[in-house]
Amino acid sequence: MKTTQILKNTNAKLLDQFNASISFDNKLYAQDIKASIAHSKMLAIQNIICIEDQELIEKGLLQVKEEIESGEFVWKIEDEDIHMAIENRLTQIIGDAGGRLHTARSRNDQVATDFALYVQDKTIAIKDKLKTLIETLVNISSKHTQTLIPGMTHLQHAQPINFGFHLLAYANMFKRDFERFESSYSRNNYCPLGSAALAGTPHNIDRFKTAQLLGFDAPTACALDTSSNRDFALEILFNISTSMMHISRISEELILWSSYEFGFVKMSDEYATTSSIMPQKKNPDVPELLRGKTGRVYGNLISLMTIMKGLPLAYNKDTQEDKEGVFDSVETMEISIDILTAVMDTLIINVDTMEKACKIGHLSATDLADYLVQKDNIPFRTAYYITKDVVALADKNGKDISELTIQEIRNIPEISNIDEEIIEYLDLRNSMNARTSFGGTSSEQTNQQIEDFRTWLANN
Amino acid sequence: MKTTQILKNTNAKLLDQFNASISFDNKLYAQDIKASIAHSKMLAIQNIICIEDQELIEKGLLQVKEEIESGEFVWKIEDEDIHMAIENRLTQIIGDAGGRLHTARSRNDQVATDFALYVQDKTIAIKDKLKTLIETLVNISSKHTQTLIPGMTHLQHAQPINFGFHLLAYANMFKRDFERFESSYSRNNYCPLGSAALAGTPHNIDRFKTAQLLGFDAPTACALDTSSNRDFALEILFNISTSMMHISRISEELILWSSYEFGFVKMSDEYATTSSIMPQKKNPDVPELLRGKTGRVYGNLISLMTIMKGLPLAYNKDTQEDKEGVFDSVETMEISIDILTAVMDTLIINVDTMEKACKIGHLSATDLADYLVQKDNIPFRTAYYITKDVVALADKNGKDISELTIQEIRNIPEISNIDEEIIEYLDLRNSMNARTSFGGTSSEQTNQQIEDFRTWLANN
Amino acid sequence: MKTTQILKNTNAKLLDQFNASISFDNKLYAQDIKASIAHSKMLAIQNIICIEDQELIEKGLLQVKEEIESGEFVWKIEDEDIHMAIENRLTQIIGDAGGRLHTARSRNDQVATDFALYVQDKTIAIKDKLKTLIETLVNISSKHTQTLIPGMTHLQHAQPINFGFHLLAYANMFKRDFERFESSYSRNNYCPLGSAALAGTPHNIDRFKTAQLLGFDAPTACALDTSSNRDFALEILFNISTSMMHISRISEELILWSSYEFGFVKMSDEYATTSSIMPQKKNPDVPELLRGKTGRVYGNLISLMTIMKGLPLAYNKDTQEDKEGVFDSVETMEISIDILTAVMDTLIINVDTMEKACKIGHLSATDLADYLVQKDNIPFRTAYYITKDVVALADKNGKDISELTIQEIRNIPEISNIDEEIIEYLDLRNSMNARTSFGGTSSEQTNQQIEDFRTWLANN
Amino acid sequence: MKTTQILKNTNAKLLDQFNASISFDNKLYAQDIKASIAHSKMLAIQNIICIEDQELIEKGLLQVKEEIESGEFVWKIEDEDIHMAIENRLTQIIGDAGGRLHTARSRNDQVATDFALYVQDKTIAIKDKLKTLIETLVNISSKHTQTLIPGMTHLQHAQPINFGFHLLAYANMFKRDFERFESSYSRNNYCPLGSAALAGTPHNIDRFKTAQLLGFDAPTACALDTSSNRDFALEILFNISTSMMHISRISEELILWSSYEFGFVKMSDEYATTSSIMPQKKNPDVPELLRGKTGRVYGNLISLMTIMKGLPLAYNKDTQEDKEGVFDSVETMEISIDILTAVMDTLIINVDTMEKACKIGHLSATDLADYLVQKDNIPFRTAYYITKDVVALADKNGKDISELTIQEIRNIPEISNIDEEIIEYLDLRNSMNARTSFGGTSSEQTNQQIEDFRTWLANN
Repeated sequence: MKTTQILKNTNAKLLDQFNASISFDNKLYAQDIKASIAHSKMLAIQNIICIEDQELIEKGLLQVKEEIESGEFVWKIEDEDIHMAIENRLTQIIGDAGGRLHTARSRNDQVATDFALYVQDKTIAIKDKLKTLIETLVNISSKHTQTLIPGMTHLQHAQPINFGFHLLAYANMFKRDFERFESSYSRNNYCPLGSAALAGTPHNIDRFKTAQLLGFDAPTACALDTSSNRDFALEILFNISTSMMHISRISEELILWSSYEFGFVKMSDEYATTSSIMPQKKNPDVPELLRGKTGRVYGNLISLMTIMKGLPLAYNKDTQEDKEGVFDSVETMEISIDILTAVMDTLIINVDTMEKACKIGHLSATDLADYLVQKDNIPFRTAYYITKDVVALADKNGKDISELTIQEIRNIPEISNIDEEIIEYLDLRNSMNARTSFGGTSSEQTNQQIEDFRTWLANN
Repeated sequence: MKTTQILKNTNAKLLDQFNASISFDNKLYAQDIKASIAHSKMLAIQNIICIEDQELIEKGLLQVKEEIESGEFVWKIEDEDIHMAIENRLTQIIGDAGGRLHTARSRNDQVATDFALYVQDKTIAIKDKLKTLIETLVNISSKHTQTLIPGMTHLQHAQPINFGFHLLAYANMFKRDFERFESSYSRNNYCPLGSAALAGTPHNIDRFKTAQLLGFDAPTACALDTSSNRDFALEILFNISTSMMHISRISEELILWSSYEFGFVKMSDEYATTSSIMPQKKNPDVPELLRGKTGRVYGNLISLMTIMKGLPLAYNKDTQEDKEGVFDSVETMEISIDILTAVMDTLIINVDTMEKACKIGHLSATDLADYLVQKDNIPFRTAYYITKDVVALADKNGKDISELTIQEIRNIPEISNIDEEIIEYLDLRNSMNARTSFGGTSSEQTNQQIEDFRTWLANN
Repeated sequence: MKTTQILKNTNAKLLDQFNASISFDNKLYAQDIKASIAHSKMLAIQNIICIEDQELIEKGLLQVKEEIESGEFVWKIEDEDIHMAIENRLTQIIGDAGGRLHTARSRNDQVATDFALYVQDKTIAIKDKLKTLIETLVNISSKHTQTLIPGMTHLQHAQPINFGFHLLAYANMFKRDFERFESSYSRNNYCPLGSAALAGTPHNIDRFKTAQLLGFDAPTACALDTSSNRDFALEILFNISTSMMHISRISEELILWSSYEFGFVKMSDEYATTSSIMPQKKNPDVPELLRGKTGRVYGNLISLMTIMKGLPLAYNKDTQEDKEGVFDSVETMEISIDILTAVMDTLIINVDTMEKACKIGHLSATDLADYLVQKDNIPFRTAYYITKDVVALADKNGKDISELTIQEIRNIPEISNIDEEIIEYLDLRNSMNARTSFGGTSSEQTNQQIEDFRTWLANN
Repeated sequence: MKTTQILKNTNAKLLDQFNASISFDNKLYAQDIKASIAHSKMLAIQNIICIEDQELIEKGLLQVKEEIESGEFVWKIEDEDIHMAIENRLTQIIGDAGGRLHTARSRNDQVATDFALYVQDKTIAIKDKLKTLIETLVNISSKHTQTLIPGMTHLQHAQPINFGFHLLAYANMFKRDFERFESSYSRNNYCPLGSAALAGTPHNIDRFKTAQLLGFDAPTACALDTSSNRDFALEILFNISTSMMHISRISEELILWSSYEFGFVKMSDEYATTSSIMPQKKNPDVPELLRGKTGRVYGNLISLMTIMKGLPLAYNKDTQEDKEGVFDSVETMEISIDILTAVMDTLIINVDTMEKACKIGHLSATDLADYLVQKDNIPFRTAYYITKDVVALADKNGKDISELTIQEIRNIPEISNIDEEIIEYLDLRNSMNARTSFGGTSSEQTNQQIEDFRTWLANN
């Protein structure tokens, strides 16, 4: 019968494959060994195991680690997970003492600890990479505080800004990302170990000692909560999603800017690929992939959010599904930051094309309105309508507003006496440099922001 | 300098790793070879390549296939994707003729075709597995059309139903899933090959021939649409998500039913696992994982939906991210159906516990209301309030409504003359069997539904 | 005490507000009344209620409908949902007979029926709107089968195509959307009414009659499944998501094309808005909003998928959350199609700018490669590399490949004898028209596709 | 013609309806007026407007506020958004001076400021509500530190814990939620106003002054980043999603516990509803809705994440879609916390049922294993297997392990000499109280945790 056949098949292989996590949780081997050594030390300090056993355990675990890193270790699906694989091998090596390691802990707190260590380690690694990316952006920015580029809203030319300022917008996004990782790190820096299955243990353990040995601030407060808490995993998934969203935005711009129509930048040859059928093409594959991978990390966040919803306390096997998504998002984030950093570092910036583009779209129109308000005390709404007329005139004359003569401007009845200095105000570079309000685009303000970033980079 | 260092590192390895899809798209090797053979045959028929070249190509491709399946094939990350890997090896084997294979096609339509073939193949495989699952459910159902179980709403006992009927609810869900897969299969059974990069080709190809050789109904209608269409991938991801949602629901029930509190079923030992710290426990890991994996496939759907949003025509590299999610969802779906089928097939059903549970909660209360409406022509709303009083009385007397005597019932003033036959109506099995409306729970109706399923299974 | 205070507050207002669905499910009033009338007719036919009561009920319900539509109806939050509001008012109007309407049905099957009717009604409405959109696209397309536009991949110019062909890509997407709505309509055209709470009813009802009166193909097969089935709601949410994804793609292109850099189209003044601070700007707000609303409908799909996951049978109150999302997505879809249709219908197409853009990027480079393969029997890969050299030469000479002279081309050693006719092949319009393969971009093929669409429109 | 007809229809109404945000952003009226007053004060301080105009503006704005709150205000869809509605009315009231208010700001920074104020206000409100919820949980907890309940993993009885401890697990989750809201508040407490459209302004404004008047820590650092930054909105959506996930978990348990099978709690009558067809039922609608609403807020998070992905700088109209989701999630969160607090506050706890349930499942089995490790120095893995034998024996004898006699236990060969004190260790309450490790379930530890919470509540 068909189902019996499936069943047999299942028993032999499918079930192991379905239940076992060893195919992915082997990534946690270093964290597992680190946590086990700390646990054994604490057990010895508390006289729960003897010092000789602790030394055997530690030595044995370090040997297992070496075997794994050298490739000697024999992985078996029957071990089911990395924790059992390590414990079984340990017991093979050191005998009975290995069996004492699991005293006063359970698989639940062990897994939670390994996973928390992984998330904390990776949070630090990602922060470092973000810093390098910010540094790279700030360095490029510092060379372009006088390079004009059309500031856009709705993908329409709006006001002239400098390219350095444009890049700083991204530096600010990645700085917020950095702060979010920093915040989740400290908010979640508590050690699960010693929570046991769900209720703590009658053994006289010292959870503060284990926490300290592992670099956590303190043990977690409630064993029942600990055994099914995955907030720290959700937080890193969200932080990565938000950061990848920022990466997707700069990628979008790199793709736009690389088009023939924009032509603002050229990606270095090593990051642009060719077509299998169109030899003339240079494709911005890297930013496209970066943009696409945003979808991928969003998916991982949704997965875990869905998994956690409606689970009763405490541990349920559903949460075994937490790890692959986190591993995948972490690795995607790491490589994405590195790749983006390299892309930016080698980007060819077509200053002339950017500046030429500023002459399209009457980018200094707002300056006229602002001038009328400031100098002639005209209400903003009125100034707005006068400006509209000047723009229409420029269009009629086939010019950008920055190219109008004082005579042309004075043709508009309401401003027939406007001072000649308005010409200076309509100049594009002057327009950019006039925006000296805090956080504005003027070169002066941009330089100030660069300096602030450098101070921040030196202090973080 | 730090960024330069990253850059070098990147150039050497990261970029290949980032851009290359060969680590996952090698799953498409069989489809790629099949499609290439069909393409070469069509090219020969149309005299675009000569018959000798076609024979060389076909023989060469079959050799490559053998090499891959035997493990001889040497995978190189520099090949970037499975398509180039196969083409490069083919050219090694057969020389110049290999170069002619790529005539009148592009990477875009080639990838789209391979991926479409994969999705169609897997759709059929999943349909088969769903049928086996439905068959299993129907078989168990047929043995339990007289087994009472409390039908619940809001997880509260509501009305007595039979367990066979309960399982048929799931059989109906999986039948709808089957129909959705059937529908997406036929809606998307069009061959991309020959669309070339985005605009078709000047070569005198016969796309209907290629489509026919590959089992598609016809070629796709518009080359530009074809090169970035991923609707078929979204459809399989959605169909899998909906089907896994149904699996998550039966899993939820298996988990509840396996609890001490319910005790309705016991999972076979091979599908229940034990605790590393609590030797007495039997954990329903399998249904918990099934429930958890629903989150995973939801994530894959979201990922691709996010990726596709806002992409201009035609192909963009973002869509390279489409495959891993589909592969993962397909494999999750396949193993999940198999495992669930095996779990159901070996499930131990505690009939007595189920039936005893029906005596709690006045499950035949609705029958009293219905009786009053039908026999005594009392408006439903009035009957409802009388029933409430009878239930209150039963509670007071510490009985279930099905255990009341006629004397007790007649204590309620409005029905002090009620016919003795009401006692029969309140009997739980009678109550279940009274629901003879189409699609109702009576054994008779349930048996009819089982028969309908068997006819359907025989015809699909 | 604080919590007691909250409690009191809660009891009075919050709870009603939290539980009640009347604030949104009032949208179902027409469906509810229609279903109740059908139910009452069936009850009368089956002699479950008398004909006089049925007539009273029907008349009463029609009066309620009039009251609702004229604005007279008094909405009360205590009625909790639209079903109770209507039933209560009915009983006020017609007295006792009103109480008989709820015979042989439950709130569960009543809600499911109303909601199913809504989804089916809206599916038809959306299909109609999609047809109008497709018709509009096809009409514009038919005027531009000779208008060149750069066909792009990776947002890079790739091959010359015609603008009519470009629009047909979208027409194809919306046609697939249409087919998906058509398919979900027929797959879900089953009537829940008569399933009662979860198990059917002992009353001698005729569910086929009710189904027929309401335009369904048949009653649903299993009462237990019916009471918590929301597959039809998930399907419309998915269909809308996919269709909005297509809308987001054409919106992305409209935004790009409206930029100064592209300049391919100009949106009609009524669909472009101005800036509150920059009088010169025309912003493509409409396509931006269309693109943004895609996120909104995705969210509604995720919501319901999350809600349904892991729910035990049968009805759970969680599913009350199904409606708002469906209403929102349906309304978003309806207005989005209408608006997009209007935007397209009034779009100003800058033919000259599009055609000029084709001269950038050596768009006929593939034609050279194809020529070498076809005429000179050179393997594709070799032809590809020769073409690369010709492109490099054109770049050196500051020309597009389509502007090279035969002398210039013959400078490349491998093709020093190439026939003069190659010049014709490199012409951009010829290049476009050469792609005559089925589904290709040639005007001839495009016209064929337009004709196919017109046939389809006439038959659907 | 059909499309023309649509077009006309569109022009008249649809477009306004589609573009306008006033139907939902009117919720921001108080923030808009507050921000405008602060802006006008700063303008006056900086001599950009005169003091008389400022006074007029402030008085006018306060009048508008009154009109809105009293219901006098006339809403017009032509005003498009709340900002224009207020400004237009202001100008009606005070004339020309109204036009000066928009000096040195743009719609972009105005909207961003209003929205940021809303998010910050609501973050504080949610924190307050979370505190009340935590307080309620802690109060109930403090009455149940000696009430036994089966601690579960995999929904299987695992170890005896106390009910107070169980509730503290949730208190810990909500405390983490509180901390996340606290963290996002301070991370995002920067004032957008003065960023103008995207580049700052040439007016001599003092952004620090405006920031201070509005309760922000400082102005935002980069105008270009500010105009399209929605990180603060994503953060509150994520924080709400995580918190609702926690609410969904306690709801799941309330639903389970309210079932006949568990019977651990009874919801107060006012929070349980009845069936329209089954008078005997009490349905846990409230926790079911709470669980369902989790899906809703997840959807809102996904929506905005999807919207933001791939947007170029700076403002794009897509982001107008940010508000409705945030409003909906915020309101859902507020009512959900209030309702859950009230439900918990009125919950009837069936202590006897909980305690009786602990006698099923050998909940003190781990204690035997721990005893053997601690007292007899047996390796954990060995102790585990001995325990398994004792459990099997208890099953054979139809007893729970806590009910075995010392004679029965000594039947197991490996522990035939076990000390009589083991009987005390197997006692369920002793078992619970033995888990004295930090964060463990013993009454002593639970009381300590309660005390820690009370200190925290007093300080936050």
